[in-house]
Amino acid sequence: MKKAKISMFYPEEACHKTAMGLFESASDLPLICPHTHLDPWLFVDGSEAFKDPASLFVTPDHYVLRMLISHGISFTALGHSPLDSDKRKATPQAVWQVFCDHFSLFDGTPTGLWIENALAMVFEIDEKPHAENAQALFSHIQSVIDCADFCPQKLYQAFNIEDLSTTDAALESLDAHRAIRESSWGQPVRPTFRPDQVIDIGHPEWRENIDSLSRVCDLDIGDFCSYIQALEQRRVYFKAMGAVATDLGAEIPFTCCLSDDRVEAIFQRGLVQKLTSADARLFKGHMITEMARMSVEDGLVMQFHVGAFRNHNPTVFRTYGPDLGFDIPVAVEWTHNLKPLLDAFGMDERLRLILFTLDESGYARELAPIAGAYPAVKLGPPWWFHDSPNGMMRYFEAVMETAGIDNTVGFNDDTRAFLSIPTRHDLWRRMSAHWLAKLVHRGQIDIATAHNRMVDLAYGLVKRGYRLV
Amino acid sequence: MKKAKISMFYPEEACHKTAMGLFESASDLPLICPHTHLDPWLFVDGSEAFKDPASLFVTPDHYVLRMLISHGISFTALGHSPLDSDKRKATPQAVWQVFCDHFSLFDGTPTGLWIENALAMVFEIDEKPHAENAQALFSHIQSVIDCADFCPQKLYQAFNIEDLSTTDAALESLDAHRAIRESSWGQPVRPTFRPDQVIDIGHPEWRENIDSLSRVCDLDIGDFCSYIQALEQRRVYFKAMGAVATDLGAEIPFTCCLSDDRVEAIFQRGLVQKLTSADARLFKGHMITEMARMSVEDGLVMQFHVGAFRNHNPTVFRTYGPDLGFDIPVAVEWTHNLKPLLDAFGMDERLRLILFTLDESGYARELAPIAGAYPAVKLGPPWWFHDSPNGMMRYFEAVMETAGIDNTVGFNDDTRAFLSIPTRHDLWRRMSAHWLAKLVHRGQIDIATAHNRMVDLAYGLVKRGYRLV
Amino acid sequence: MKKAKISMFYPEEACHKTAMGLFESASDLPLICPHTHLDPWLFVDGSEAFKDPASLFVTPDHYVLRMLISHGISFTALGHSPLDSDKRKATPQAVWQVFCDHFSLFDGTPTGLWIENALAMVFEIDEKPHAENAQALFSHIQSVIDCADFCPQKLYQAFNIEDLSTTDAALESLDAHRAIRESSWGQPVRPTFRPDQVIDIGHPEWRENIDSLSRVCDLDIGDFCSYIQALEQRRVYFKAMGAVATDLGAEIPFTCCLSDDRVEAIFQRGLVQKLTSADARLFKGHMITEMARMSVEDGLVMQFHVGAFRNHNPTVFRTYGPDLGFDIPVAVEWTHNLKPLLDAFGMDERLRLILFTLDESGYARELAPIAGAYPAVKLGPPWWFHDSPNGMMRYFEAVMETAGIDNTVGFNDDTRAFLSIPTRHDLWRRMSAHWLAKLVHRGQIDIATAHNRMVDLAYGLVKRGYRLV
Repeated sequence: MKKAKISMFYPEEACHKTAMGLFESASDLPLICPHTHLDPWLFVDGSEAFKDPASLFVTPDHYVLRMLISHGISFTALGHSPLDSDKRKATPQAVWQVFCDHFSLFDGTPTGLWIENALAMVFEIDEKPHAENAQALFSHIQSVIDCADFCPQKLYQAFNIEDLSTTDAALESLDAHRAIRESSWGQPVRPTFRPDQVIDIGHPEWRENIDSLSRVCDLDIGDFCSYIQALEQRRVYFKAMGAVATDLGAEIPFTCCLSDDRVEAIFQRGLVQKLTSADARLFKGHMITEMARMSVEDGLVMQFHVGAFRNHNPTVFRTYGPDLGFDIPVAVEWTHNLKPLLDAFGMDERLRLILFTLDESGYARELAPIAGAYPAVKLGPPWWFHDSPNGMMRYFEAVMETAGIDNTVGFNDDTRAFLSIPTRHDLWRRMSAHWLAKLVHRGQIDIATAHNRMVDLAYGLVKRGYRLV
Repeated sequence: MKKAKISMFYPEEACHKTAMGLFESASDLPLICPHTHLDPWLFVDGSEAFKDPASLFVTPDHYVLRMLISHGISFTALGHSPLDSDKRKATPQAVWQVFCDHFSLFDGTPTGLWIENALAMVFEIDEKPHAENAQALFSHIQSVIDCADFCPQKLYQAFNIEDLSTTDAALESLDAHRAIRESSWGQPVRPTFRPDQVIDIGHPEWRENIDSLSRVCDLDIGDFCSYIQALEQRRVYFKAMGAVATDLGAEIPFTCCLSDDRVEAIFQRGLVQKLTSADARLFKGHMITEMARMSVEDGLVMQFHVGAFRNHNPTVFRTYGPDLGFDIPVAVEWTHNLKPLLDAFGMDERLRLILFTLDESGYARELAPIAGAYPAVKLGPPWWFHDSPNGMMRYFEAVMETAGIDNTVGFNDDTRAFLSIPTRHDLWRRMSAHWLAKLVHRGQIDIATAHNRMVDLAYGLVKRGYRLV
Repeated sequence: MKKAKISMFYPEEACHKTAMGLFESASDLPLICPHTHLDPWLFVDGSEAFKDPASLFVTPDHYVLRMLISHGISFTALGHSPLDSDKRKATPQAVWQVFCDHFSLFDGTPTGLWIENALAMVFEIDEKPHAENAQALFSHIQSVIDCADFCPQKLYQAFNIEDLSTTDAALESLDAHRAIRESSWGQPVRPTFRPDQVIDIGHPEWRENIDSLSRVCDLDIGDFCSYIQALEQRRVYFKAMGAVATDLGAEIPFTCCLSDDRVEAIFQRGLVQKLTSADARLFKGHMITEMARMSVEDGLVMQFHVGAFRNHNPTVFRTYGPDLGFDIPVAVEWTHNLKPLLDAFGMDERLRLILFTLDESGYARELAPIAGAYPAVKLGPPWWFHDSPNGMMRYFEAVMETAGIDNTVGFNDDTRAFLSIPTRHDLWRRMSAHWLAKLVHRGQIDIATAHNRMVDLAYGLVKRGYRLV
């Protein structure tokens, strides 16, 4: 018998060179950003977030806030005031100083990496921020911000972005998106349909949101059937405004298919606000399956983000609001929870269900096996806390062997920090190159395949994954 | 005080050379295959599976099927027709063409690695399959298959196999095994006692299987006592036919010890098919402990495979049957679940309980600590989805520090794909060499120890682990 | 746009040299040992444990025992006799021989590494123990032990220890600590307040322990209020004896805040021993929160160790007692369980809550996000089975990106094996250097930062973390 073809052994040195070569070959490909949390008004009239260094890098970034808060810095020192108070916020200069004073907290974190790279890539700053250079950096960044060229539309092109989506609540008018489409600018900025506020029947504001939904759709929502009709109508509108995808979040991915009578009964209890917690759970589970059904019919890609316990600290939430760094992950069970949805639509290729998790223990155990079997399922990139050098390597190593590269959808930056977009994609491409180089030197793929796969990981998978071709 | 003896630092380059040396030194050791899913008739009269390239590599391999299905290829295009239909299957040439068309789906997967290596090692094909070379490869493989030398008995020896076990349902006549034993061939092919069909009391066919068991044992099974007697009788028969081990599967490893009255009551409800789901769970838990008790008494090694939700998609199961790639793993809890069994027999060395899991999060957390304390327990190699380059490295890194090498049992290929046996063992040996070389260069073991451990991992541990010495 | 500043690529060879350099620069820093299980009498009058090689290395070490037991060696052969028997124990020479006979069981384990290093560092023995050299090693070690210089006080200084804490039950008189403080020796040996025995209301001996607590505090404990008063009084006493921390263990980290009436009712049922298991769980959950409240008030650091199913095997426990290697980890959920405590005190910097887990799947999923947000929380080092080369690397890679270095507290050895202290800290420093060197060569931190962080990981973080500055 002949020797094995694939050696699995390799000298690291050569591997390192191959990795650099792969990265270089893909570093100029355009960026596809199918999942961001940018404010679409950025691309109409600029925005608050581009006023000064503190509002660019500190105040709105929950990654930055949480780390500083964890060291006992107050929200007010970081530019947030209590929701019910008109207490004066810290000045941008003061916020920036606190941030630079404590920048070493970010040593070895992806936040530190993104910020250092953004400073270098966008502002040509090669120094690490610290207490002494804080105000000089502030002035330099402010002077760049104040230039006419430093506006989101121009940065979109400077960043080599080809396509970008925002995330928009189901009730949104999408006025900003309409304005962009009607302008002469011509670059794609798409909305994404996020229906959580009208689906989470247990949420205190759900009843009110249904009234708004009624109004927006000009439809009397008195039963489940008209409710579904309203949601479908909204999807049609989002699609007309350029949307290619929906997005849904849940703490756990419980799904189910209720009978018409049962779902109607729960819906009616929801309207009169006499819901049990079991009702709320079942309704959410049923609606996730309904969203899959609608995607089968209208072709919108269905994104499903699972695993965050939102607003974990009630004091922070009550005093300062959501999205300030106090969302904590939980363990996620997929195999049983997702079964009712997969029983109904998992074999149907018209459904494109992209799964995201905060629980990496599910990568190799549940998600890769599911994506590697069901035609409807693909895996999103490492999400949130795992959008990091080690998080990406763990993802490649745990997911790819079982799911296969083609059951993943490349990268998305999932960010509200516009300036971090280039460095986030850049990092993904570098880590992709690392991983592919190892496959080459072990003998698992040849170098030509590696170059093709590099283009896939940087560009092709996300474009095909979100049906942008 | 003197410096530490063990440096933990090493240059990768030297490590890579050591790894290659360790592998070379062990690459000619015979293969021990104590857990396969081969059809024993292969070694009596050849088989269907050896007819053409498609039936060798595609149609029966659930790893291959699932990946192609996940990309929307139909089961019929892959040689499967619906169970209740006589719809004509695709020709072997057509199946092979579809497979080669989509071979890049296997980039970076263990399936891709096994197939490329099997083509190279067995058929001397160094090209990667693709759309254009598909039919040429088909003809070449077919011409080799058609040679008189290409038969399972001769391949057994060409592959350097020393001992091999199949997996056989409790009700099996073992006629194939008897035929092999009575032939002049003389190589060991052992049955393994797999009692799931007569233990899973909740299974729709259990009642019928008990009738068959009655018949096979010529024993009236009217109570739990006669049922146990029948199982023991079957074990005696399997042992007489060469068996050294049993195999049991479960979604979760729940075990218990019921009172005689309680187990009898459940058994009687099972006979009249008036079982609750709690009954079924308790009975399975009790029978796992019973199997351990029988192993204490007759010395058969007890294999226990946990964590697969079988036939996850009901449509695929109903239409095409089991084992087609739609088994999805679940999280597994061992510490509480296995305790009743371990309380009873965990300290008894006469029991050899080998555990397999699909949930890697249990490796370092539960399995290695259990195997590193209880004399009865050893850990099986990385299983199924984890039988892969990264899966093996994760296993070595997570298991060995706490369990110790000697509480593991080397490798087994667990395959129904005969031609993949050499490459699977070869991969295990290469990854073992990687891991040992790192220990050497960190200073944790010396090179002489590494060579001994290399032989252990490739040959000694599995032989001793399955009591083949 | 400019290129990214941080390359993420590096040649391994250079990285290896940087790692060695970082380690060398920190290898002479003093050891801070804020969590040991040493007997404080060691530092007053020496101890039983220092009598001979077997009692130094084998008999009291649960890591060593479990591995030998797992291979069928009996407890009696290892120097343990059944609790209720006066069966003669094996001689130290015989125990040592068995240990050396089977030393290869420890190949690749941290126990093997610690022992080989301790033999080299303390006894200048460079040979690996084996059957033939066993008695010669015994004689050599015995001759060193018998020297006047070989006593715990002198070793404390030879090991370059700067500060050390023991772990002491709430009812302890702390006579040894008083004797040390009153002696002329002058090195810090601090008690740690471990209240489990008076908090675990479900434990068979709890009632009796409350009587002892009454006696020790000279306080009539008839209600929850006086019980709390007694605990606070004990904390004052421990603090006066030098304590800087408390320590609490639990299988799962369930916490809650009960109403005064509810906790009083449970306490009263506890006093008359009419407790339900729900009572016991709630009481423990409430008391964990109470311990946090006390730490807010008295400033003692609160250590919380979670995830061990203690005394998993009832026969071993009944026959030989606790702490013999039969504690098995379980999965741990933090996000929901810890919420009541964090709601109450998580934002309060006066609380310093250090979390330890045996379930690594929580590192990146729950613990790093919690520590990276809540000012009160920091993460302890990899614990118990994970105090190992791979365990440390997994910890660095999974925790640091999200928690940040400054939300961790360096290393602690958590050992009852005094001679293993230098090698344990040495290993942590080597693995820290590895991890930091990778950050340097990827471009994430500069070399000056790496040197500072090396000092932090080896010395600064633990000192600040336990408020020893």
